[in-house]
Amino acid sequence: MRESEQILLAHGGGGELTQRLIVEHVLPRLGNPLLAPLADGALLDPVAGRLCLTTDSFVVQPLVFPGGDIGRLAVCGTVNDLAMMGARPLALSLGLILEEGLPLATLDRVLDSIAAAAAAAGVPVATGDTKVIERRGAGGLLINTTGLGELRPGATLGAERVAAGDLLLINGGIAEHGLAVLSVRQHLEFATDLVSDLAALDELAALLIATCGENLKFMRDPTRGGLAGLVCDLAAAAGLGLELDEAAVPILPAALATAELLGLDPLGIANEGKLVAVVAPAAAPRALAALRAHPLGGRAALIGRCLRAAPPLAELITRGGGRRLIARPYGEDLPRIC
Amino acid sequence: MRESEQILLAHGGGGELTQRLIVEHVLPRLGNPLLAPLADGALLDPVAGRLCLTTDSFVVQPLVFPGGDIGRLAVCGTVNDLAMMGARPLALSLGLILEEGLPLATLDRVLDSIAAAAAAAGVPVATGDTKVIERRGAGGLLINTTGLGELRPGATLGAERVAAGDLLLINGGIAEHGLAVLSVRQHLEFATDLVSDLAALDELAALLIATCGENLKFMRDPTRGGLAGLVCDLAAAAGLGLELDEAAVPILPAALATAELLGLDPLGIANEGKLVAVVAPAAAPRALAALRAHPLGGRAALIGRCLRAAPPLAELITRGGGRRLIARPYGEDLPRIC
Repeated sequence: MRESEQILLAHGGGGELTQRLIVEHVLPRLGNPLLAPLADGALLDPVAGRLCLTTDSFVVQPLVFPGGDIGRLAVCGTVNDLAMMGARPLALSLGLILEEGLPLATLDRVLDSIAAAAAAAGVPVATGDTKVIERRGAGGLLINTTGLGELRPGATLGAERVAAGDLLLINGGIAEHGLAVLSVRQHLEFATDLVSDLAALDELAALLIATCGENLKFMRDPTRGGLAGLVCDLAAAAGLGLELDEAAVPILPAALATAELLGLDPLGIANEGKLVAVVAPAAAPRALAALRAHPLGGRAALIGRCLRAAPPLAELITRGGGRRLIARPYGEDLPRIC
Repeated sequence: MRESEQILLAHGGGGELTQRLIVEHVLPRLGNPLLAPLADGALLDPVAGRLCLTTDSFVVQPLVFPGGDIGRLAVCGTVNDLAMMGARPLALSLGLILEEGLPLATLDRVLDSIAAAAAAAGVPVATGDTKVIERRGAGGLLINTTGLGELRPGATLGAERVAAGDLLLINGGIAEHGLAVLSVRQHLEFATDLVSDLAALDELAALLIATCGENLKFMRDPTRGGLAGLVCDLAAAAGLGLELDEAAVPILPAALATAELLGLDPLGIANEGKLVAVVAPAAAPRALAALRAHPLGGRAALIGRCLRAAPPLAELITRGGGRRLIARPYGEDLPRIC
């Protein structure tokens, strides 16, 4: 590859080369009236509601994986964090940290993905920043996306609203993102049809808010730490016990087989297109019906319940009818998964 | 150093170790009611005005330099980007990307700096994210800070408002940040009393807006690319010629000597506590007086003017009375300077 087709340290200097990178590669793909002035920031029109700010850095390896790439992951991940807070996305910021040696073709592909995902979610990349760091290996790419949103009318979410008796729903099968990334990273050709579940959950979240109103208590996407991390966090934050029914948690046979082969607990594996919603029992049937009627919720299921318990722990009712404590994963089975 | 005193890859897994890192190191330093719930994002109260969103990643090496460190740099840099847009900071997000092997003591020091700088600027770190990437060398640290602000009443800024005859002011001497970082990085002991000019420019910006009203046309901080990059960008964006008087541009004798020794043009070297303001001529005397009355503006000066010119280029009137074109720096003399 010619040097002119790669990122150089000098692309990060804030000079002529930085300018060309922005004008020739970024603006043609992401350009919009907010970003185009290339000012120190973007000015947005006033909004009436409460604001939501959320940030996430993405360090996934490899940059492209079955079902997506780091660009789409960054946009969907941040849109999803806003969605889980009950907010409608208004604008994203994009911080690119490029490694020297990154092929410009890879950057272009990632920028195309960012553009497509942002357009699909109806949210502009309003402001950005580009830095370059020294070569590490083949030339990588890190992304920070920060999202600004406006709280949707009717959203009253928070772990403190969750009560004993409330029910846990999920919109589909678990562990697909983590296992899909792992399968390519380890050059394992075993589970070739597993793809990441990467998706923007904004519509689904809006649907639940509209369907359930204040009977929707809490939403979160089980990304790093998986479903296990989510239920442990929620039990502690709500001060309640949680019970998950293993037999009710949707999982593709291929995902289950791959996780078993690798000795990984699917409950601890990252998802990127799943949400867990906690609803009052009265709203559960219509919430489940609403999820199942959406393309991202065809396999939605009721997977558990909240109950009074001290100390507030999460338990799994196993397929065999036994019970075991669910532990928050200690470190990580899968580094750089998102 | 014991392994328990360093960042491990497992600290980035979203599990128990991530939780401990946040609870034991981040929250005691940065904790506030917005951050404390550790939700997917922070909910902020509604504001009346236009919103400003700005993002910046910080990759400076070394992490600690004369006059500051990467933590204070990140907070001040983002506060300054908001300030230059005419906005009052409302909230910051903090994306930490840690390298395996980073001493926890270094992380703590950087977090302390972030906390102190955020408190001084009166802005909460409202939401955050932590990732860990593989060891590169001694263990480094990258930071993204994204800022949300509200446009100050009376701020009407933009390159398109700049007109022929408008004047350029700066609040003090140039090139100190870049040269201070370079001096420690290269183990050069020559210019030992040079320290970074790193500072939050929020008060100064508010003062200029209050003093000049709509006679204040444009503000920007000459960071990467230095004053040269700023005037080249502004000339192009405003479609005007710019003239800088070399003799009027403040620079410490130590900075000038160091730059000359290294063969670097001080105009192209990064600053982190300087702003350039463009004002209508009628407002220049009171703007200059306001700057000089502030601790960060004691050496403020009128350094140039805008004029009708085609093509719109920036020129330097040299100390000797000659003229030369100011070119946007091509790549970077000083990689990873901010």
